[in-house]
Amino acid sequence: MKVDGVVRRSIQLAADGRSVEIVDQTLLPHSFATRELHHLADVVEAIRSMRVRGAPLIGATAAYGVGLQMREDPSDVSLNRAFEDLLATRPTAVNLRWALDEMRSALGGIPPAAREERAYERAAEICEEDVENCRAIGEHGLRVIESLCEQRSEPGPFNVLTHCNAGWLATVDWGTALAPVYLAHDRGIPIHVWVGETRPRNQGASLTAWELGQHGVPHTVIADNTGGHLMQRGKVDLCITGSDRTTSTGDVCNKIGTYLKALAARDNAVPFYAALPSSSIDWTLSDGIAEIPIEERDGAELSHVRGRTPDGKVVEVAILPASSPIANPGFDVTPARLMTGLITERGVCAPSRAGLAGLYPERAGGASKS
Amino acid sequence: MKVDGVVRRSIQLAADGRSVEIVDQTLLPHSFATRELHHLADVVEAIRSMRVRGAPLIGATAAYGVGLQMREDPSDVSLNRAFEDLLATRPTAVNLRWALDEMRSALGGIPPAAREERAYERAAEICEEDVENCRAIGEHGLRVIESLCEQRSEPGPFNVLTHCNAGWLATVDWGTALAPVYLAHDRGIPIHVWVGETRPRNQGASLTAWELGQHGVPHTVIADNTGGHLMQRGKVDLCITGSDRTTSTGDVCNKIGTYLKALAARDNAVPFYAALPSSSIDWTLSDGIAEIPIEERDGAELSHVRGRTPDGKVVEVAILPASSPIANPGFDVTPARLMTGLITERGVCAPSRAGLAGLYPERAGGASKS
Repeated sequence: MKVDGVVRRSIQLAADGRSVEIVDQTLLPHSFATRELHHLADVVEAIRSMRVRGAPLIGATAAYGVGLQMREDPSDVSLNRAFEDLLATRPTAVNLRWALDEMRSALGGIPPAAREERAYERAAEICEEDVENCRAIGEHGLRVIESLCEQRSEPGPFNVLTHCNAGWLATVDWGTALAPVYLAHDRGIPIHVWVGETRPRNQGASLTAWELGQHGVPHTVIADNTGGHLMQRGKVDLCITGSDRTTSTGDVCNKIGTYLKALAARDNAVPFYAALPSSSIDWTLSDGIAEIPIEERDGAELSHVRGRTPDGKVVEVAILPASSPIANPGFDVTPARLMTGLITERGVCAPSRAGLAGLYPERAGGASKS
Repeated sequence: MKVDGVVRRSIQLAADGRSVEIVDQTLLPHSFATRELHHLADVVEAIRSMRVRGAPLIGATAAYGVGLQMREDPSDVSLNRAFEDLLATRPTAVNLRWALDEMRSALGGIPPAAREERAYERAAEICEEDVENCRAIGEHGLRVIESLCEQRSEPGPFNVLTHCNAGWLATVDWGTALAPVYLAHDRGIPIHVWVGETRPRNQGASLTAWELGQHGVPHTVIADNTGGHLMQRGKVDLCITGSDRTTSTGDVCNKIGTYLKALAARDNAVPFYAALPSSSIDWTLSDGIAEIPIEERDGAELSHVRGRTPDGKVVEVAILPASSPIANPGFDVTPARLMTGLITERGVCAPSRAGLAGLYPERAGGASKS
């Protein structure tokens, strides 16, 4: 996707072919800057502090983190350490474990001397697969949009509501929830996106609004509280979000607040889809609310906000009474029953065990619990 | 309620017995300061800029605004001007019109020379009635809490979730939604409040957390996105919010986002009540979504946040990409079907025409449309 008119990706190799260049997403939307990661510790810090975030991008970055570690020390002990350190960075997104499992299976059986080369090769493949998956999600989602456009009688643009950031900044390129939006826009469908600011980290306001603006897609920022009101008034044609972890039964764990939007969509008969690559599916789980660990993040994400002062400086300010306790769970679970469908790289399916099994028969058979 | 251990009200007469002293709520939670209003224009500015806010407090402040104007010029033209200027300040809360109608009917038929005295008398009565109504709402709501406590098997405090600020800062004293909470706390019931920060103006984080903290009520601040997740996990025993306007059929128009919490409460079988004085009921309306005008407020409320820098200065910072458009409707409508009941000064009733008519037979008969 485009930044200042130039096409780029959220992660790529630096000029030396080994260091990893990321977009430092904690600086957006106030400034755009890349950052080079040279060591495993840099990658751990970048994921933990959310310089990179978004389930697919976390997986891709972790894969390169293994590469950086293999460059320094390709031993078994070192490989295990990379696996453990990276896995501990974020507990909810399953792509992280998926990417690390991919790396371990690529590297475990080969001699240490061959591991650096193979690690970079496999990490690059994971990135390319992610781009290809996102583009495929975009094509399948575009057909959902086209079909809804045909049924629509209202004048004006087709209105999509999204939550958090599941755009190209959450993946290597294209995004998941936003891939169909970018494709629709690029192909001339008049489309407009309601962007929930997504407290407490404001990924909607900081990242989604920024990337849509950079690519020229019409959008309007709203408070997270506003989505239901817009749906009541007929101003939303489609909700699409990403997914940080999807159960084999179609429950979707995503940024906190997704569940509330899905409830409003159901109450107002607005179609609600989650868009996800199959690497986000945890085939071992069948009950999202009971089984998915929800990351409890630092209360400072709620009590402090980063912004620009009138003279252009970026500062962090406290917005709460200093003595008030804070709870900050990062995700919630939207039960499959509230969704219209799941948009994957293989197509659109019902949010159910049968729906997912139809698209992924090779996975659903093996790990299903019931 | 208490501030720094001292009992006070949100509005009172200054030492001269004529000027009006308010708590400047735009400065909270960073500093507590009162402000004297001397002219009608000061009152208009204070309501419009939300130095005072909350449906009952807006009504009480407007009443004193008429008093200030009568002091300067008690003519009919002047009385009409006060009515029109004050009514135009905020379009959604119906208490404003109610209080102005009360003032006009008290002053219209008496000689101009008697109006100043009578205006201050009637404004003081409106304030006392508000305090009495809120205390009565507290007693009726307390019985709801006591009854739910008896049915409860979980250990630990009784958990209330509220949205925005319907505490004493939204009224003259006690509050509406928080009146039952203060009474329960004062009477030794272990109670804990989940406080949604309430974007975009953060009245939950700035006002509700502050006033609960000042009074010593245990509470935890959460993002607005978090309420549904907490209900899914059984961590909410009761939701109570205020109401800016209630239809004769029990629809509740309240701070944007209330509807989403009511949907989550319904989905998780959590009781959901709105607490309101009857001055918030618009007996002429029967369909909240179709009939209540929703105030569209300045986008700067979403794009800018006020907070404390590490060195203690209070500054306003921009948090959005400068080029992103913003929509900022201030309220939404929660349909009666999603609520368990309404808590009024006369008791608790079903959120329906029949429920309200049972408590207010003298009003429901006259204005009902159907």
